[in-house]
Amino acid sequence: MNVHRFGDGSQAQDLCGRSMDAGKDDTMFLDTDLDVGRADLRDASSDYLRVRARTLELTRDLSDEDMLLQSMPDASPTKWHLAHTTWFFETFLLQPHLPGYRCVDPAYQYLFNSYYDTIGERHPRPVRGLLSRPSLAKVLDYRARVDRAMEQLLASASPDVRAGVTIGLHHEMQHQELILTDIKHALSCNPYAFTGFGLGAGARSSEAPDTGFSSFAGGLVEVGTDAEQGFAYDCEQPRHQVFLQPFQLRNSPVSNGEWLAFIEDGGYRRPELWLSDGWSHCQSEGWQAPLYWQWREQQWQQLTLRGYLPVNPAAPVCHISYYEADAFARWAGYRLPTEFEWECAAGTLPLRGHFAEADRWQPQPAGPEPGLKQMYGDVWEWTASSFSPYPGFTPPAGALAEYNGKFMANQWVLRGGSCATAEQQMRASYRNFFYAHQRWQFSGLRLAR
Amino acid sequence: MNVHRFGDGSQAQDLCGRSMDAGKDDTMFLDTDLDVGRADLRDASSDYLRVRARTLELTRDLSDEDMLLQSMPDASPTKWHLAHTTWFFETFLLQPHLPGYRCVDPAYQYLFNSYYDTIGERHPRPVRGLLSRPSLAKVLDYRARVDRAMEQLLASASPDVRAGVTIGLHHEMQHQELILTDIKHALSCNPYAFTGFGLGAGARSSEAPDTGFSSFAGGLVEVGTDAEQGFAYDCEQPRHQVFLQPFQLRNSPVSNGEWLAFIEDGGYRRPELWLSDGWSHCQSEGWQAPLYWQWREQQWQQLTLRGYLPVNPAAPVCHISYYEADAFARWAGYRLPTEFEWECAAGTLPLRGHFAEADRWQPQPAGPEPGLKQMYGDVWEWTASSFSPYPGFTPPAGALAEYNGKFMANQWVLRGGSCATAEQQMRASYRNFFYAHQRWQFSGLRLAR
Amino acid sequence: MNVHRFGDGSQAQDLCGRSMDAGKDDTMFLDTDLDVGRADLRDASSDYLRVRARTLELTRDLSDEDMLLQSMPDASPTKWHLAHTTWFFETFLLQPHLPGYRCVDPAYQYLFNSYYDTIGERHPRPVRGLLSRPSLAKVLDYRARVDRAMEQLLASASPDVRAGVTIGLHHEMQHQELILTDIKHALSCNPYAFTGFGLGAGARSSEAPDTGFSSFAGGLVEVGTDAEQGFAYDCEQPRHQVFLQPFQLRNSPVSNGEWLAFIEDGGYRRPELWLSDGWSHCQSEGWQAPLYWQWREQQWQQLTLRGYLPVNPAAPVCHISYYEADAFARWAGYRLPTEFEWECAAGTLPLRGHFAEADRWQPQPAGPEPGLKQMYGDVWEWTASSFSPYPGFTPPAGALAEYNGKFMANQWVLRGGSCATAEQQMRASYRNFFYAHQRWQFSGLRLAR
Amino acid sequence: MNVHRFGDGSQAQDLCGRSMDAGKDDTMFLDTDLDVGRADLRDASSDYLRVRARTLELTRDLSDEDMLLQSMPDASPTKWHLAHTTWFFETFLLQPHLPGYRCVDPAYQYLFNSYYDTIGERHPRPVRGLLSRPSLAKVLDYRARVDRAMEQLLASASPDVRAGVTIGLHHEMQHQELILTDIKHALSCNPYAFTGFGLGAGARSSEAPDTGFSSFAGGLVEVGTDAEQGFAYDCEQPRHQVFLQPFQLRNSPVSNGEWLAFIEDGGYRRPELWLSDGWSHCQSEGWQAPLYWQWREQQWQQLTLRGYLPVNPAAPVCHISYYEADAFARWAGYRLPTEFEWECAAGTLPLRGHFAEADRWQPQPAGPEPGLKQMYGDVWEWTASSFSPYPGFTPPAGALAEYNGKFMANQWVLRGGSCATAEQQMRASYRNFFYAHQRWQFSGLRLAR
Repeated sequence: MNVHRFGDGSQAQDLCGRSMDAGKDDTMFLDTDLDVGRADLRDASSDYLRVRARTLELTRDLSDEDMLLQSMPDASPTKWHLAHTTWFFETFLLQPHLPGYRCVDPAYQYLFNSYYDTIGERHPRPVRGLLSRPSLAKVLDYRARVDRAMEQLLASASPDVRAGVTIGLHHEMQHQELILTDIKHALSCNPYAFTGFGLGAGARSSEAPDTGFSSFAGGLVEVGTDAEQGFAYDCEQPRHQVFLQPFQLRNSPVSNGEWLAFIEDGGYRRPELWLSDGWSHCQSEGWQAPLYWQWREQQWQQLTLRGYLPVNPAAPVCHISYYEADAFARWAGYRLPTEFEWECAAGTLPLRGHFAEADRWQPQPAGPEPGLKQMYGDVWEWTASSFSPYPGFTPPAGALAEYNGKFMANQWVLRGGSCATAEQQMRASYRNFFYAHQRWQFSGLRLAR
Repeated sequence: MNVHRFGDGSQAQDLCGRSMDAGKDDTMFLDTDLDVGRADLRDASSDYLRVRARTLELTRDLSDEDMLLQSMPDASPTKWHLAHTTWFFETFLLQPHLPGYRCVDPAYQYLFNSYYDTIGERHPRPVRGLLSRPSLAKVLDYRARVDRAMEQLLASASPDVRAGVTIGLHHEMQHQELILTDIKHALSCNPYAFTGFGLGAGARSSEAPDTGFSSFAGGLVEVGTDAEQGFAYDCEQPRHQVFLQPFQLRNSPVSNGEWLAFIEDGGYRRPELWLSDGWSHCQSEGWQAPLYWQWREQQWQQLTLRGYLPVNPAAPVCHISYYEADAFARWAGYRLPTEFEWECAAGTLPLRGHFAEADRWQPQPAGPEPGLKQMYGDVWEWTASSFSPYPGFTPPAGALAEYNGKFMANQWVLRGGSCATAEQQMRASYRNFFYAHQRWQFSGLRLAR
Repeated sequence: MNVHRFGDGSQAQDLCGRSMDAGKDDTMFLDTDLDVGRADLRDASSDYLRVRARTLELTRDLSDEDMLLQSMPDASPTKWHLAHTTWFFETFLLQPHLPGYRCVDPAYQYLFNSYYDTIGERHPRPVRGLLSRPSLAKVLDYRARVDRAMEQLLASASPDVRAGVTIGLHHEMQHQELILTDIKHALSCNPYAFTGFGLGAGARSSEAPDTGFSSFAGGLVEVGTDAEQGFAYDCEQPRHQVFLQPFQLRNSPVSNGEWLAFIEDGGYRRPELWLSDGWSHCQSEGWQAPLYWQWREQQWQQLTLRGYLPVNPAAPVCHISYYEADAFARWAGYRLPTEFEWECAAGTLPLRGHFAEADRWQPQPAGPEPGLKQMYGDVWEWTASSFSPYPGFTPPAGALAEYNGKFMANQWVLRGGSCATAEQQMRASYRNFFYAHQRWQFSGLRLAR
Repeated sequence: MNVHRFGDGSQAQDLCGRSMDAGKDDTMFLDTDLDVGRADLRDASSDYLRVRARTLELTRDLSDEDMLLQSMPDASPTKWHLAHTTWFFETFLLQPHLPGYRCVDPAYQYLFNSYYDTIGERHPRPVRGLLSRPSLAKVLDYRARVDRAMEQLLASASPDVRAGVTIGLHHEMQHQELILTDIKHALSCNPYAFTGFGLGAGARSSEAPDTGFSSFAGGLVEVGTDAEQGFAYDCEQPRHQVFLQPFQLRNSPVSNGEWLAFIEDGGYRRPELWLSDGWSHCQSEGWQAPLYWQWREQQWQQLTLRGYLPVNPAAPVCHISYYEADAFARWAGYRLPTEFEWECAAGTLPLRGHFAEADRWQPQPAGPEPGLKQMYGDVWEWTASSFSPYPGFTPPAGALAEYNGKFMANQWVLRGGSCATAEQQMRASYRNFFYAHQRWQFSGLRLAR
């Protein structure tokens, strides 16, 4: 099975008359054979239904109006996410593979394609929030129709189709996280008191972070993954050797309490702690604390998806930029780990953590267990590595893969997933990436030396 | 009766705890005694209900999502207009005058106050579109509660109150027009085909414009108005003398057909026709035709509130900036009239025209009657007059009036009302004003010499 | 004689191969017959030499490097002014009228033409400061060569030529003022202590301003001028009637001492005093005092062309924007006069004042004489009138006149000249104009009521 | 000897009263013991005089006016470079080490300090071009005075001083290159024909580039350097191991002829070839060819320091951004090398190439010798490596070193030096770095696979 073929854009034009590009939101795709052998057909179908249902479940406390909000160009409306993930299945699965399929509305090919950059000289990504039409009801109907057709397709799916479904579901899980981070940002722009949303109970521990370090010998280690090891995006491949000096990673991520000490020590006012570009941002944006922190009623509070809550000193700090993470590390006398140090250390641990399924969507304090912890879940951890191709990285051909490596400049790798990441998405080799100034993801840091 | 007292902001703080400013959207207020003697109490109440109901009627084809759209800082969401006009009655009538009145939600004092400029260093006007909460349902409930309280107040209204209601209703009628122009702009940003909305049937005449001129002797003439002549905003006062040279006004506004000739003659490519600032705008914005015109299917079409329609050559041109109006007049060998020439000429005519009540919301060709026509309705007519205070203009004191004259710089006077203006609002002395580059109002021009 | 002919651009292309436009710096030109009859030929020649020599005299304390400075797009380098005024004579006099004249360097046609806007999509006006080549020496040589050729032309000048010389010299006097205001701005951007330049002795009076008012009856008055009354730009024409209400003008311009009271009363922090656009500028630019004022060594000092000097409370306030003038007038309980009120009042006075010839280039306190004073000289006085065409204004044809009226939008009329204006330039009908936010001219205000 | 001590800012304040920071222009400094043992004192003195004289020699064809030009914030005026390099010796050598030394002008401490960012909220780097005062003559006098004092200091120099002089001279050589690149950019902004400057004869070969590849086995290799190996900046340290896959480097840099093929194949119009950020820049800047290329007289010409010359197809392409280099490599089916691949390959070659000393300041075609060539000189070669700290990198303490690592984000490493680099500066471990969009350096590329 090969993603190149099913992703070929030329087939996708038959009934809808538009060519399709995959863009920023869809930047990372598998470029070799997919491992779907472990899941039989029944699983594909039930996985499909489960992931799709989960997406809707995340939006159940949101109104039609909420789902139209777009508060910055980096973010998209919930409704757009709902439609775009559906467009993905329609475009890359139904159109090329389901005989006789007619696309629900040809205009959706244009509206819900995530790669708008080359379509015109005005950048339409920032104006996704102006799409009051099609209505939410129509978008939900779009989802339902595509889901029905997908059921039909899955009833007799070829390996190609099953591989495509795997990609589509991983893609959808990425957008589940974006739904949470984007609506959080949008609601934060509204001064009108909101009671928030969010499902899970906040079982809050007050365990202090473990400031001890775990040691690693380094040397020649293997990083990345290969297709036969299970699903992975192309940028995680190929598996290859790197040479690491001996290093130490701190057992816990940096906590809110430690961040408060940084603030109180003038961390946001001392240029000598900052990268030059970071200091420019810090000044021009007036940063004085992580995103969503506010000094209210004589204390630091932070906006969560359930409204404002007091900052919990024991929980990992969150919603910080790379620049802030780097400045903190310098202030603390340490540094950020490289992505390979992180991956080398994570390789020794079970894939367990506090993910989106817990429905708390806020990082939690660590438990009392000794040693390296919270590597997975809670907060994405900024690394000192810029997002670059691995040796031997070859961008695959085809529509889906056309722009695979195009974001490999000026962005930084984050590792480990967050409290808003679907657990099924995560693995030691997963590379997330954002610009150094971005803060609206659930991003934190871990110290190294 | 005196607006100063009922508009006093200090009383308005009792139950809601916020001070109130009136801003851009509320820039023009009566500064002397109101003429409400002609309307008895029953009329005030029925006027109130009629105008308020009309506002909702304008929105009946819009969804919750449509009403949240804000496509540019100059425009506001429909929902915001619905709330703001209600806030006006709550703030200036109910709070100071209805004993025991409790405001519906103290937060609305902040959210729906139109004058955001001094509240903080970030200009929140551009982010009204992020207010998904309070929901439309809550805003409609707000309207209903205020309306019930107003009924109570109107049952025993003092002259002060009746004067305030008059202002509030004129204010609401201004926002009725903005609801139409703002939603038109918002829907124009959505490439998704929309069937439009709009109530009336399009009785389209194809009478060519009357290119003859009517002559006026000029001399010392009176312009403006005084309080005893009926309701008027302060900027229309006082009535005073100006000296006019003899002049001529063209009988019809400039038509789409004439505008096409301007385009075809290179009007948008010839800097010598333009004011220097206008040429900068023309180039930086890439203007090639009036706003909402598009070359589609081998012809010029224009977006209307019922969707795209072919440009009707006989109808007045619309959605042009002052800069374009001025360039056209230079190209045609004429000039724009001053606002006093316009007012002097209009003074001889009955107040009759094609207004919003016709529910067509698109300028129509003239009828066959001879002489000066379409002075009222169809399109606002740009004049050559910058918006300035009349001799003896004295801004009134009090919260409502605090900023009366603050827009008297860099804006230009338009006269006569449009197809989206409520007829009851119009009079010969009415001065509308916008910046020279703005095009989203129903603005056209009439030639003078 | 008619400017249309000698200004015809087509003739100017013969030897240099470029078409010529006159732009912003050359915006105001005579449109009818010139009155040069009063000056015989000898005068024209000696006037020419005197004005041209004066220009160089103004630069005698400036180095080659100083003369290259351009500190903002509104201003030009001294060297550029020296070249541009020369280009004017070469282009409009020598090329069309001196047989066999060869232009000094064809490239100068492009470099020293003041109207750059239509030449390309990049606005080169802001980069005049990058023209290190041709060197100052070459520009001085350019002046000398053109002056020699002009002597030849003036030896046998036709009325056309004499009219052109008159315009050229008035144009050059305008640029003399700009040389002073532009270099003042440029030197103000250099923190390196400068001893300044400037010729005259500072005879400083400390007479307090006369806060009394002079009364005028208004009525139908004549304003503007006609060609037969002597040289004037087209925008001052034609002479026409306006109707004025009775008004009063304050005898003295507003002084620095009064401005200090405005500052101390929070004038720069109270939005209710400001026009809406003005308040935006005030905040975004951080205005806290007039341009060039600095709080140094426990007192307000102001940068003059001789360096920093303590603010003299008795002298007229200077380097303020229209917005500040308007806010001050509102704060003081008065208003700005219209340009016609000013002209009506000035018509009664001899043309006498403190002009550039005194070589002090800083406004001075009034003398003790009673009544209206300092109407001419010291500071340009902002009026409440936007810069508009007079009734019957007809832009002349030809290259020089092509853009005559193009600045008649968004700018405000200033009257009376300043301490940096050549006395010979001034007359009661003279209309200067700038944008409401501009402050680098010697601009002040006089109150009216 | 330790740079920490002599670079300590507190000592430098004694006579001039200002604290000193080193900034962008001075970003890379030695952090450990300097190897100056090989140079005896006489050498230090003669090296000093030679390097300082060379700086002036580079400017000998420039006028006072030329030397004031600043055409963009990234670049500085020649005069500023002359002063800043002198300030460096005054601040870090004379003030702390020469007893009784009085600084030439305390204001120079502020004006010629390269790190302006933290001094105030206005970014003064962009306005270095407004410093007409102090004059060039004064700056040359400043150089002469400091040189005399340095001679005195060098007569009895301690190891500390000798180490400081070494840094100062390397710093000055960096600025020699910037003088050339910055004035080239400034002169390119002047449309006035310039005959250019430049000293050497243009011995132009037309040898085609060698498109063969040299192979390297990779494996565990050592990169970087340590203090005992001779002078190097801190960012080149420490020497450490990296693991490389086998790789190949092309023998010649990419040539202009090859670049023409890229242009002709639509290289600047095909988004699929570009990084996402690169495509944004390409579009917003309108890139269609390397910087300084112009289509003139039916052929591609390029601006050189001797004026416009036809593009030589055999010479290495130059003045391209990282984005362009990356797009070209993708188009060609190759990739850029990492900095370690480059260094590993360069380690096998003698340090020989076409440097600034040849006084041609334009990259030249290769000679006929076989194998890897032009690794040094001609053009800086963009690598695929972002500028990051080496493992174990520890920023040194002290004023000079305060900001050593602050540019280690969003910039890319270039290797090998250019035709404008002083030969003495170069070594295999040298890391130059610029932002991905910058093009005004002599930057080219070499392909890898």
